[in-house]
Amino acid sequence: MYITSRRIIDRLADLARIGALPGGGVQRLAFSDDDLRGRHWVQGHLEAMGLEVRIDAVGNLFGILQSTENEQEAGIMFGSHTDTVGRAGRLDGALGVVAALEVLEVITASDWRPARPLILASFVNEEGVRYMPDMMGSLFHAGDLPLDTVLEAADTNGVRVADEMDRLEYAGTDALDDLRIETFVELHIEQGPVLETLGKDIGIVAGVQGLSWFEVTVEGASNHAGTTPMEMRRDAGAKAGELCAALRRLPDDIDDLRLTIGAMHWHPNLVNVIPDRVVFTIDVRHPVPESLQHAEDRIKEILGTGTEDLEVSWKSLARVAPCTFSPRVVDAVASAAGRSGLSGHRMISGAGHDAHILSRCYDAGMIFIPSRNGISHHPDEYSTDEQIERGTQVLLDTILTLSGFPGHTT
Amino acid sequence: MYITSRRIIDRLADLARIGALPGGGVQRLAFSDDDLRGRHWVQGHLEAMGLEVRIDAVGNLFGILQSTENEQEAGIMFGSHTDTVGRAGRLDGALGVVAALEVLEVITASDWRPARPLILASFVNEEGVRYMPDMMGSLFHAGDLPLDTVLEAADTNGVRVADEMDRLEYAGTDALDDLRIETFVELHIEQGPVLETLGKDIGIVAGVQGLSWFEVTVEGASNHAGTTPMEMRRDAGAKAGELCAALRRLPDDIDDLRLTIGAMHWHPNLVNVIPDRVVFTIDVRHPVPESLQHAEDRIKEILGTGTEDLEVSWKSLARVAPCTFSPRVVDAVASAAGRSGLSGHRMISGAGHDAHILSRCYDAGMIFIPSRNGISHHPDEYSTDEQIERGTQVLLDTILTLSGFPGHTT
Repeated sequence: MYITSRRIIDRLADLARIGALPGGGVQRLAFSDDDLRGRHWVQGHLEAMGLEVRIDAVGNLFGILQSTENEQEAGIMFGSHTDTVGRAGRLDGALGVVAALEVLEVITASDWRPARPLILASFVNEEGVRYMPDMMGSLFHAGDLPLDTVLEAADTNGVRVADEMDRLEYAGTDALDDLRIETFVELHIEQGPVLETLGKDIGIVAGVQGLSWFEVTVEGASNHAGTTPMEMRRDAGAKAGELCAALRRLPDDIDDLRLTIGAMHWHPNLVNVIPDRVVFTIDVRHPVPESLQHAEDRIKEILGTGTEDLEVSWKSLARVAPCTFSPRVVDAVASAAGRSGLSGHRMISGAGHDAHILSRCYDAGMIFIPSRNGISHHPDEYSTDEQIERGTQVLLDTILTLSGFPGHTT
Repeated sequence: MYITSRRIIDRLADLARIGALPGGGVQRLAFSDDDLRGRHWVQGHLEAMGLEVRIDAVGNLFGILQSTENEQEAGIMFGSHTDTVGRAGRLDGALGVVAALEVLEVITASDWRPARPLILASFVNEEGVRYMPDMMGSLFHAGDLPLDTVLEAADTNGVRVADEMDRLEYAGTDALDDLRIETFVELHIEQGPVLETLGKDIGIVAGVQGLSWFEVTVEGASNHAGTTPMEMRRDAGAKAGELCAALRRLPDDIDDLRLTIGAMHWHPNLVNVIPDRVVFTIDVRHPVPESLQHAEDRIKEILGTGTEDLEVSWKSLARVAPCTFSPRVVDAVASAAGRSGLSGHRMISGAGHDAHILSRCYDAGMIFIPSRNGISHHPDEYSTDEQIERGTQVLLDTILTLSGFPGHTT
């Protein structure tokens, strides 16, 4: 079976019109009007195919191609999300959902019917821009986030998810209790430069890095830049600078560690005043649990070097353990890539995804396609039509393989 | 002659009621209603003493005790400013003006009349908070800032000094052309911790540090913190951190250098995004012209270490050359301190002052009193009543010495 190339390209363009921003880029923030319009667009295509549509209590959308068997085998779920960051490109999330539609289009148009239910899933609020945490929909689905917590989550203006759900009639009441689901597969852009740099077609994603976020506060004393002798200063900025330099050297010692100091706030932030308080964040990621833990220990050691004049404190903002994807799914992706003569690269995802969350309850896996210059979360996010088509074909072949389609084996 | 201690303490409290802020502190921003009320308060005391009042074209206020001689000798000017920063203490600027009033109170109440004109000066907009440059009034008086430039200066809302002057009937038309002025003396709080730390009563200020301000921009590329391998990053934050650490070490190499990185802005300033642009400031000060120049050269050398991946650019925001005060005035201050049995400390001012500007046209000098914890530009700014009284007595004795009062010699 083969995808229809034109259809997926056209549909991505179609979906990108929902929430299109005047200066370029797309905005479909979770639980907004445009987010709902995005879901309606997906739902319309599912209904046009004659599939069963279900919407759960947080708004996760499912389209189900039921199996032909009475005593059905475990179902295969695939998809991604259609919410976006504030000024997004057109591919992050959308590609995985539009490609999942294509898989179902091709299969429903064929004579073949799977013995397992096939389930398109589009999870809500993967991005976590307006409402924390990110990956909210898949966390709820996996049983890791109670409904009440979702409903009570509030944005910076105090508007709760429950308020927006009421306003938009966003939620449903459906469950998937009648289906046994065993597998989740997600096609996504890489959001990094590795495939492009190596000249590879397909990322065979073997797991997702773990992540740990810290917020560090350095407190000193604010004084006049001109009148305070150097030896009498309690300069929070100077201490923060030292800490950043030391932290930034950690990846030299720990292989495969990624460390970013992304946010930095100085107070009072005036040219002629010694800073009395600096707050900065650390984002550290590693694919191996023990190495992530080791990196965290080293960070705490470095942050422990405060003096009586300069107090250094920190708190954890987030922590997600690394995950290893199911070898069965990873192998199916690898053989699907091989079947189309594409060059695959076995890799670890640097970013978090719904598949990472769902790996806790299902055999999960991911397929990456190259991102030009590694850019995502930006209107410049781009993959070629050919890369998009290849990724979608690999998703189709992976689902066929996992469904026991004749002749498709790993 | 001796000051009346109670009077100066009461008057400082009186003046601090003008522009008093609800939560503590004082605000009399230049060219505001409260700034004008502050000037009226000073003017009222000058008129009550029967002195001649003049207001020039930018609003500088002068109170003149004319000399007894027809063929008068060169005049002696003393004072400071009554404008403040946004949330100021009660002493910065105010002390110098209130003490100058006290000097004139004591002399006019005595039988003695000087052979030189004595001129109280209260200069406008020393702080430069709403309208740049700071020390605007003394720069105009010294002939270093044309009237048009003052009038056209605009705040961040586009309101010009000329607009506020019209609204408040702020300016006058008086000049001091009929007076030959030779000397300017300013009493001020130290705004630094040196006198308090050394346990000294009086700062005998021998000059003012030069100052040079830079704004530095580091440009890299914004990318995903999780997906971008360390070796593929163009991390503006990491580069800025290195530069700050290198810059902060300069005072180890150059004696008496003061270097502050006071303001720092990261973009986009998100925990999981590599910064693509960091802008920070450098405030560097030294009392010796050649050393200040050497420090600026070293700074440019350090900033010159950009790579093709990370562009570093800078511009100069301000530059003021160091000044050395007149030995005649400095000696008069030293002998005035000795006359009252006070411990004097010969020092360089770390902050800029009107006296720095006026040293270009007059023999200038300054007297410092200790600042508790070195704090200024803050409601916690504090000197004891005794320190304030001692400083005022030293100002009086300095003016008497410079005026040829019998028995007062250096």
